[in-house]
Amino acid sequence: MEILVYREGAKTVESGFTVEQLPELLKEEKSVIWVDMPEPTDADEQVLLEVFRFHPLTVEDCRENRHYPKVEEFPDYVYFIVHGVTANTSPDRFNTIELDGFLGHNYVITYHHEMFRSINNVKKQLSTSPVACQRGPAFLLHQILDQIVDFYSPVLDDFDERIDQLEENIFSLKQPNNVILENIMELKRSVLRLRRISAKQMDIFYRMSRGEIHLIPQQMLPFYRDIYDHLIRVTDLAENYRDLLSGALEAYLPVVSNRMNEIMKVLTIFSAIMLPLTFIAGVYGMNFEHMPELPTQYGYFVVWGFMLCVAGLMLFLFWRAGWIGSGKKTAKEEGKS
Amino acid sequence: MEILVYREGAKTVESGFTVEQLPELLKEEKSVIWVDMPEPTDADEQVLLEVFRFHPLTVEDCRENRHYPKVEEFPDYVYFIVHGVTANTSPDRFNTIELDGFLGHNYVITYHHEMFRSINNVKKQLSTSPVACQRGPAFLLHQILDQIVDFYSPVLDDFDERIDQLEENIFSLKQPNNVILENIMELKRSVLRLRRISAKQMDIFYRMSRGEIHLIPQQMLPFYRDIYDHLIRVTDLAENYRDLLSGALEAYLPVVSNRMNEIMKVLTIFSAIMLPLTFIAGVYGMNFEHMPELPTQYGYFVVWGFMLCVAGLMLFLFWRAGWIGSGKKTAKEEGKS
Amino acid sequence: MEILVYREGAKTVESGFTVEQLPELLKEEKSVIWVDMPEPTDADEQVLLEVFRFHPLTVEDCRENRHYPKVEEFPDYVYFIVHGVTANTSPDRFNTIELDGFLGHNYVITYHHEMFRSINNVKKQLSTSPVACQRGPAFLLHQILDQIVDFYSPVLDDFDERIDQLEENIFSLKQPNNVILENIMELKRSVLRLRRISAKQMDIFYRMSRGEIHLIPQQMLPFYRDIYDHLIRVTDLAENYRDLLSGALEAYLPVVSNRMNEIMKVLTIFSAIMLPLTFIAGVYGMNFEHMPELPTQYGYFVVWGFMLCVAGLMLFLFWRAGWIGSGKKTAKEEGKS
Amino acid sequence: MEILVYREGAKTVESGFTVEQLPELLKEEKSVIWVDMPEPTDADEQVLLEVFRFHPLTVEDCRENRHYPKVEEFPDYVYFIVHGVTANTSPDRFNTIELDGFLGHNYVITYHHEMFRSINNVKKQLSTSPVACQRGPAFLLHQILDQIVDFYSPVLDDFDERIDQLEENIFSLKQPNNVILENIMELKRSVLRLRRISAKQMDIFYRMSRGEIHLIPQQMLPFYRDIYDHLIRVTDLAENYRDLLSGALEAYLPVVSNRMNEIMKVLTIFSAIMLPLTFIAGVYGMNFEHMPELPTQYGYFVVWGFMLCVAGLMLFLFWRAGWIGSGKKTAKEEGKS
Amino acid sequence: MEILVYREGAKTVESGFTVEQLPELLKEEKSVIWVDMPEPTDADEQVLLEVFRFHPLTVEDCRENRHYPKVEEFPDYVYFIVHGVTANTSPDRFNTIELDGFLGHNYVITYHHEMFRSINNVKKQLSTSPVACQRGPAFLLHQILDQIVDFYSPVLDDFDERIDQLEENIFSLKQPNNVILENIMELKRSVLRLRRISAKQMDIFYRMSRGEIHLIPQQMLPFYRDIYDHLIRVTDLAENYRDLLSGALEAYLPVVSNRMNEIMKVLTIFSAIMLPLTFIAGVYGMNFEHMPELPTQYGYFVVWGFMLCVAGLMLFLFWRAGWIGSGKKTAKEEGKS
Repeated sequence: MEILVYREGAKTVESGFTVEQLPELLKEEKSVIWVDMPEPTDADEQVLLEVFRFHPLTVEDCRENRHYPKVEEFPDYVYFIVHGVTANTSPDRFNTIELDGFLGHNYVITYHHEMFRSINNVKKQLSTSPVACQRGPAFLLHQILDQIVDFYSPVLDDFDERIDQLEENIFSLKQPNNVILENIMELKRSVLRLRRISAKQMDIFYRMSRGEIHLIPQQMLPFYRDIYDHLIRVTDLAENYRDLLSGALEAYLPVVSNRMNEIMKVLTIFSAIMLPLTFIAGVYGMNFEHMPELPTQYGYFVVWGFMLCVAGLMLFLFWRAGWIGSGKKTAKEEGKS
Repeated sequence: MEILVYREGAKTVESGFTVEQLPELLKEEKSVIWVDMPEPTDADEQVLLEVFRFHPLTVEDCRENRHYPKVEEFPDYVYFIVHGVTANTSPDRFNTIELDGFLGHNYVITYHHEMFRSINNVKKQLSTSPVACQRGPAFLLHQILDQIVDFYSPVLDDFDERIDQLEENIFSLKQPNNVILENIMELKRSVLRLRRISAKQMDIFYRMSRGEIHLIPQQMLPFYRDIYDHLIRVTDLAENYRDLLSGALEAYLPVVSNRMNEIMKVLTIFSAIMLPLTFIAGVYGMNFEHMPELPTQYGYFVVWGFMLCVAGLMLFLFWRAGWIGSGKKTAKEEGKS
Repeated sequence: MEILVYREGAKTVESGFTVEQLPELLKEEKSVIWVDMPEPTDADEQVLLEVFRFHPLTVEDCRENRHYPKVEEFPDYVYFIVHGVTANTSPDRFNTIELDGFLGHNYVITYHHEMFRSINNVKKQLSTSPVACQRGPAFLLHQILDQIVDFYSPVLDDFDERIDQLEENIFSLKQPNNVILENIMELKRSVLRLRRISAKQMDIFYRMSRGEIHLIPQQMLPFYRDIYDHLIRVTDLAENYRDLLSGALEAYLPVVSNRMNEIMKVLTIFSAIMLPLTFIAGVYGMNFEHMPELPTQYGYFVVWGFMLCVAGLMLFLFWRAGWIGSGKKTAKEEGKS
Repeated sequence: MEILVYREGAKTVESGFTVEQLPELLKEEKSVIWVDMPEPTDADEQVLLEVFRFHPLTVEDCRENRHYPKVEEFPDYVYFIVHGVTANTSPDRFNTIELDGFLGHNYVITYHHEMFRSINNVKKQLSTSPVACQRGPAFLLHQILDQIVDFYSPVLDDFDERIDQLEENIFSLKQPNNVILENIMELKRSVLRLRRISAKQMDIFYRMSRGEIHLIPQQMLPFYRDIYDHLIRVTDLAENYRDLLSGALEAYLPVVSNRMNEIMKVLTIFSAIMLPLTFIAGVYGMNFEHMPELPTQYGYFVVWGFMLCVAGLMLFLFWRAGWIGSGKKTAKEEGKS
Repeated sequence: MEILVYREGAKTVESGFTVEQLPELLKEEKSVIWVDMPEPTDADEQVLLEVFRFHPLTVEDCRENRHYPKVEEFPDYVYFIVHGVTANTSPDRFNTIELDGFLGHNYVITYHHEMFRSINNVKKQLSTSPVACQRGPAFLLHQILDQIVDFYSPVLDDFDERIDQLEENIFSLKQPNNVILENIMELKRSVLRLRRISAKQMDIFYRMSRGEIHLIPQQMLPFYRDIYDHLIRVTDLAENYRDLLSGALEAYLPVVSNRMNEIMKVLTIFSAIMLPLTFIAGVYGMNFEHMPELPTQYGYFVVWGFMLCVAGLMLFLFWRAGWIGSGKKTAKEEGKS
């Protein structure tokens, strides 16, 4: 547990307080107290229950690490859960980490089992300048949450890139295989998760930016509305990605079918040329005693000529039907026309 | 019928009361009376109608065992139906059991045709400590309902595991068959059922946790909100599973199509190599008297050589087109690129 | 037109009144008058317009037999349309019949062009006991409507059975054909119709059970809420059936594709075995003068042996690739694993 | 421009007024004035702007002919746009024509670039009886709008018929071709358009029938509610058609796939019978010097017999697998079972 | 930065003011001041912060160029973001440019990084006539926004044309290829973007046209409602295009499948004719010593005749099954029937 205190008018944020000093500190009405609990212990929970007198159920919610974002207002404090992205998250396995927190009239508590880059950033910032604390705990909280939401942006860019590349892979499909499908499924799962989390988070900030939470003063609302706007974009992009992935999956099957058509054509062309030729050769392989063509001088060569004609005719018919040759050219023309 | 009574300030919960004592017990304003009716008889129903004077329609609802979760408020009591999971439920055949119940200002009645693990648990708990009764009937009811909802968690984990394994089966598909499809359909049916039930249950607890039910006092609301939060997660996961299963079904067809492409390729490659060779053999099987190649010394071997060349050329063409060889490698590279 | 009258305190329901007596009867404030108009005539409509003074548009609505369920409140009366199921309806061709009706402060009018089993049942009941009339016209109406909604249950069971059997047919598909598809389409159409009707009906009973209709007294509301609950189940099941049918259609294509894979495999296996063998036979059918194998003593048998080896090798390769043999076993194992 | 005036108590509707008389006529508080502007000129628009003093933007809206149905209330008048069906509309190319109009406290204005059958009908009616005018301008307007909505019915019947026939074509599919697909797409487009228009129109009449428009008096509301009910049906049917067409498209692919299965079966059966036979013939076409079967007396016939056995065995196997014969019968049985 | 000022009653709009004059100008209550900031600099932002005293967050929003349309009301001013179409946008790559702006009680500020044709148009107009300014800043703003929305129309027409042509390409599909699929995907992406933007914009103008923004006076509302109506059409068309593109994608797969059926038929017909003939030829190529047909005078010709019969029979069977010949005719008849 780390306790940071900003006393009104001070030029720095003091740190290094102990738990025992907390009750005293909380009595300073004008101070801003930030209690950060990374990897919290049972003792930390006791502090929440006994010093801050939070509802036992919310403290229990803190401990369990699998809740959805939410905000709950109590007479003296606000309890919230928001989700940040993990440091090494990837579009294939998008994951979030949970930040529990409390906002009181002169304190902010953050409680998390995993490392939050955003919290570290704010701490670093406070070590040089107390600006983030000067406007009260709601502003300090805004600073933390804003950073958390900002860390979604690079993840969204990753999604963007992956989906672009996936679509390209689908259409340039050299070898139909299931890897692309598995990629689509994994991305879809991640996107669904992203959308769920950010939609829930959006609801929270909607409530926060509308003045519903009485501990967030009127003049702070534009700042929370700013985060809300950011989350609208995140949710919107997540929905966009979901649509694009659905489209990718829908487009995949026709691509495979087109490919199957190509394979079938090769087979059909081969069969249609070779079967008649083989038949002709078979005819002159018959052992009838009376076959007028056999004893002729040039019969063999005439048959060869005939067979070449048949093969040529077949090729011509398939070419005219558009099955062979200029395939790519036609495709492009159709596209342009 | 089993009657448990907690008298204010008592250290234990008394049991072993008879139906005849009920009217007397109900007059004790400060007691908490729990009437549990497992496998209820007609006599039990008479008690509901005559001792508790419940509306005949609600008692009829109790008897019929196929209602959806609901809560109905009456002037003196609340009637509710919630669904728990059966003890041996599986993702393939998800099933629920119905618990009917009544909450009065000093009693809780539970009415169920099947065994509820949650009710047994609460009874066991009460036999050692009266804590669950000390805060009034609304808290006792909360204890029962909380347990019922907790039993959904292992079922959700089962779903999770089954869907994961199903997706794996789809992509590792050795032999296209309908078993996977049947599994998807069964799971989908279960998930739809789970979602319906939990969504309906969510509505009930939403109403209960908002203070709409006057028999649930203000200080009990956070406890009911806790169950509500839990049900949000259940419903949300059920929706997630439904999306994943839809995705699995959507992905299945392309997987089968990819497989068909593979089969077609094998067929095409065989035909494209064998048909020309057979034709060549057929040509030299013709019986023309004048075929210059036949009498030559090495004609046979030259033809063999030529046939090998043709076969080699075909293999080379197919290899270059990516139809044979390094298929899996290419797939992985595409995936990674 | 049939007129039934229950006079307060009477032990039986009187019948056999004529139209001319109606104005007199309507003046009896405490009686319950039920006017049933099966296969109504123009004269009946005149009664509605002149004796009851209903709005001409509602009487016109009665006459036209293709309206959706609705309820309209007028200062003195309520006009409603509900739909019952036809006696011989089937899941393939689900059809409803229309019941128009009016509820006044001392009368109920039912107007219908087709026979309603529910109306006959209530009449039969009234001929033995006046209970259904003793609580006023709103209760009498409830009795009729309750019966109408009850008749949906067997139809729903029929749907259930048909869909179960359809799913089974899809997966046990011996011969891909369009009959199953036609069945799915017919059932879907029926289910869509059922859902539409019951959803509209649900809205009506929602309004009726909320006390919106002032002619339905407060103490009658639980009875209407009971019908509403029943319709929730009907609508819910209809939605469930729609989802199952959509799933069935979605599953059908992969089943057909799986089957096509099977057919393709048979073709490929035959071709892959027979084409090389035919080629080998063709080779030794060539007429070259110098073919070292031909004059040998056991050449023929060696070739046979070689051909058997080739065939065996092919079969082995296909078996190893999982194309032949133990197909079903593998399928089950995959399913279980 | 055509001006029709009904003066209170008159027995006929007068016509033949000129624009110059309009200001005078408008002062007659108790008259009902209908100004119809078919193929309106710039002069007509001037009248709207200067005599009636309508907002310039609404007059501009009138001129442009591509607006959606809407209703706008102004202090003295109501401006509305509704869409009627064109006289020769067809399900393939469903099209609507726009009617702009104004309702004032003693006038109705209709403004349209194309001929409206409904307007002609109302005019014809007025030439024989002034009934439609006797209840004021709101009733006159109702008469016009009611006719417009009535003309949707035959179009809906056409849709019904076309979709029925389309479904039949899909399942009786003799020759897979794209014509059916094109039909589905055209119909879908039309249905989407119909639904959009009628849904928008429904909103308008919902507002009109709720008493939101102060120029429509209370006693007129049931008449507007009647049109609203009619539009509910239109929208509902349009949605139904959309669902059916989606279903038809969904069913088309399996039908084509079934057909492909049939084709593949024919190919496979032919190959599976002919390839082994050809191989056998090839074997005895080999030129080995020592082939014990060749010199035998009945070898040729034995081979023929053997080949017939092979062919028969193949046919038997395919028959047992359900690939040949009694296909249709099986199909029906499956359907019935 | 360009400053245009209209002083009440003036005949022209003055321009050429400098930043330094702004504070003075803003004091002129009755003037209309338009500050246009194309390619804004840091100095411009300082003006927004210091002269106009806008909230720092909104100024920051201006700078960042990737926000969604929105409108935010502050006590003295309104901040809005709307999106216009880029000059050279195409349906394949639909793109929008962002216009940030402020509306005060006597000024309009437009802030944009890219060239807006609509702004240039309004400026040109103002250089000849001050009409657009005479009704106050809300009307000036309306003029600008109206132009922006008008520029969507040609883009929509482009979409319309592209989709029409795409559908045609699908059905006239000569050569199945992925170009059409790529086109569909690109268009879909554009349409999704268009719909998102215009839906968000619609919300803004809905609020503006309802009198929610106090800086837009009552008599201006019809003008904003006009833009709102226009955006309803844009959004509606975008939804229509999305539906059409989804339909196009859905129709593509059956088209490809139909084509595959055609290919399979060609293959099957060839195989079914050639395989039996080759078999017959093979039979008479056998080297049995006792083959009664071989020594006959006309055996060879009889076999030729028999082979022609077989081929003819096959062709007849395929023709009767509808696989060959009159394919197109049948298709049309089916379409018409």
